[in-house]
Amino acid sequence: RRGEMAKSTQLIDNEVFRAFATYAAIVLLKMMLMSVITAYFRITRKAFVNPEDTASFGKGESAKKYLRTDADVERVRRGHLNDLENIVPFVGIGLLYALSGPELTTALLHFRIFTGARILHTFAYLIPLPQPGRGLSWVVGYLVTFSMAYKVLKTVWLL
Amino acid sequence: RRGEMAKSTQLIDNEVFRAFATYAAIVLLKMMLMSVITAYFRITRKAFVNPEDTASFGKGESAKKYLRTDADVERVRRGHLNDLENIVPFVGIGLLYALSGPELTTALLHFRIFTGARILHTFAYLIPLPQPGRGLSWVVGYLVTFSMAYKVLKTVWLL
Amino acid sequence: RRGEMAKSTQLIDNEVFRAFATYAAIVLLKMMLMSVITAYFRITRKAFVNPEDTASFGKGESAKKYLRTDADVERVRRGHLNDLENIVPFVGIGLLYALSGPELTTALLHFRIFTGARILHTFAYLIPLPQPGRGLSWVVGYLVTFSMAYKVLKTVWLL
Repeated sequence: RRGEMAKSTQLIDNEVFRAFATYAAIVLLKMMLMSVITAYFRITRKAFVNPEDTASFGKGESAKKYLRTDADVERVRRGHLNDLENIVPFVGIGLLYALSGPELTTALLHFRIFTGARILHTFAYLIPLPQPGRGLSWVVGYLVTFSMAYKVLKTVWLL
Repeated sequence: RRGEMAKSTQLIDNEVFRAFATYAAIVLLKMMLMSVITAYFRITRKAFVNPEDTASFGKGESAKKYLRTDADVERVRRGHLNDLENIVPFVGIGLLYALSGPELTTALLHFRIFTGARILHTFAYLIPLPQPGRGLSWVVGYLVTFSMAYKVLKTVWLL
Repeated sequence: RRGEMAKSTQLIDNEVFRAFATYAAIVLLKMMLMSVITAYFRITRKAFVNPEDTASFGKGESAKKYLRTDADVERVRRGHLNDLENIVPFVGIGLLYALSGPELTTALLHFRIFTGARILHTFAYLIPLPQPGRGLSWVVGYLVTFSMAYKVLKTVWLL
């Protein structure tokens, strides 16, 4: 059943679409993980931004000192924003790409390289690795998305 | 016509997809509302970030004093960013989930809880409600998205 | 083959979907361009945020002075965030709209106006143009997305 891609009318039976759905879910889950890491650092570093979040530490000045920025918290937040800036285009363009009829092997190559690059990017940001580690992993993900956009525009172009 | 989901080749005739489209549009409109609330607070609090936005208040020092941050404006902006961080995964994973063939009742449960949780989250952030109000509404939306991602990966897995 | 939209089971043969894919790819690429402009200004203005990014300028105090904010860098970053806040709803709601069976001419009108408005918004932000240039281009894109959401909800409503 999985192989009859051309005859099927169900997107979910299309192998390229299944591959896209797998990798899109993985990178979106990876992005969601950044929220948990931010919360972890906010709690362990006691660095909050909303007064109501520090209420459990007491009232007045004793709680107010925890309304502060922390270098590690800010680093995770930058990684999270960078994910939004790059994973959103991947998911949007990747969906259109998956529907534009690419070869399964070509599509898998795009999805795997992007996902690997973004996982590397997160490690490079959080450890942090010396540059150009983070820069290169960002560029690789960027070029993969650009390559998919090129295929989409070549296939569907209707302005 | 609406009931013949299995025979139809039009996504829009699929009831799960219709439910997804309804809730996705609602949460995206809710997210868009944050821009208007931010603009409202910027104007009423006279707290701007771009020099060209304060030009109508006069030139030089008289306008410069409105280039400042305001606690309420920053609060709405944090709510907006939190929406981006959580509604983007919901829309992306929710679309794949809707295409993965879930039961309509199960799908509606996911969509309704997520949407309710995010509306609560906005009220909890803007009023603000004491914690753990905002924290719990965030966790509920997070777990719903995670549950949909699990169903997607179980159904489509092709790495 | 392109004209047999009603008979085709392939999304990519649907002209409205092809138009959506074209414009969605264009605005997502435009949004991705903001990353490159940010990097360009960070490098030319020597204004970085991560210590590892300034390591090539030497060690200690000589590199530390490049960990600073720059007005032009911050301006591009605000434009980028504004893109995320507005292009994400366009891509999400626009996809549902394209599947809700609008007339091709009506759909093209929506996609073209939104894309034009967002390109204008970027120029208005980066040059910068005096207000209400940026404000109006933002409103136009916002209303187009709202109009598509209205059509989606009218067509699919299943709560």
